[in-house]
Amino acid sequence: MQETTHALNGWYVTGLCEGEACFYVGFALRKKLKVGIETRPSFSLSLNQKDLRLLQSVEAYFGCGGIRYSRSDRTYKYEVRSVRDLVRKIIPHFERYPLQGAKKEDFERFADICRKVHANLHLNREHLKQIIEIAYEMNRSGVRKHQKQDLLRVLGEEKG
Amino acid sequence: MQETTHALNGWYVTGLCEGEACFYVGFALRKKLKVGIETRPSFSLSLNQKDLRLLQSVEAYFGCGGIRYSRSDRTYKYEVRSVRDLVRKIIPHFERYPLQGAKKEDFERFADICRKVHANLHLNREHLKQIIEIAYEMNRSGVRKHQKQDLLRVLGEEKG
Repeated sequence: MQETTHALNGWYVTGLCEGEACFYVGFALRKKLKVGIETRPSFSLSLNQKDLRLLQSVEAYFGCGGIRYSRSDRTYKYEVRSVRDLVRKIIPHFERYPLQGAKKEDFERFADICRKVHANLHLNREHLKQIIEIAYEMNRSGVRKHQKQDLLRVLGEEKG
Repeated sequence: MQETTHALNGWYVTGLCEGEACFYVGFALRKKLKVGIETRPSFSLSLNQKDLRLLQSVEAYFGCGGIRYSRSDRTYKYEVRSVRDLVRKIIPHFERYPLQGAKKEDFERFADICRKVHANLHLNREHLKQIIEIAYEMNRSGVRKHQKQDLLRVLGEEKG
């Protein structure tokens, strides 16, 4: 008999995410884009491999995103990258069941950026500059591929 | 104006604990005890220092235990060691709002041991042997001060 995932309580999901989830906005250099930089928001939740079934319940709860295995640290990562899903499913969840700790600030910046991206403001140089500034206020302990100044320099160089 | 902690939702607390809490049963050699070994159950939740206020809300939610700072890893740890509080406050919480992942198994072993200790069964050699066996099935990834075989040897040596 196959075990099925069961419905999680919304507050439980937020509590789990308070400790384990990550709201992140990455940037990639893309010469084909007019502004030269791609904006890539993502929501992810990593758990030890013994909690795969729990992660599947989280995936079922949100109804979007996917799970993949990271061999290096023996974790499964649930991740949502679709801006449409972030704006329609992930963000509304955390507005209905708000984070209670320091991660709430990251979430608010993340929601702000996702909505700007959803409205295509990231394709405008001035708005993208703002988005980069907001993103670099988030997850300050993490490691980033690009320095903020390098991204801003690319924006300055590109001609509209 | 002092910020006050606010009431947390029970499911939120369980979600947070799913990722961050630890149910642990330690043992210490105590020559003064007839069985030679002290049984020390504890429930703890460690968060980064920026989440002290959240930890205070957790302390207020459970109405027991205390918080201390760990300088080495810049975290605050909320901890409950009183067996009475564990049995009357912590365990009933997780029975009302159950863990949904792999940690649930640790919790069930922990609850079993706490109730045995609360009934003073840990002062009986045969029951203590059982308690040790159960405890060493928990938190298998953690580091322990005493090997299980050493504790069982102490029990074997001690005369009633």
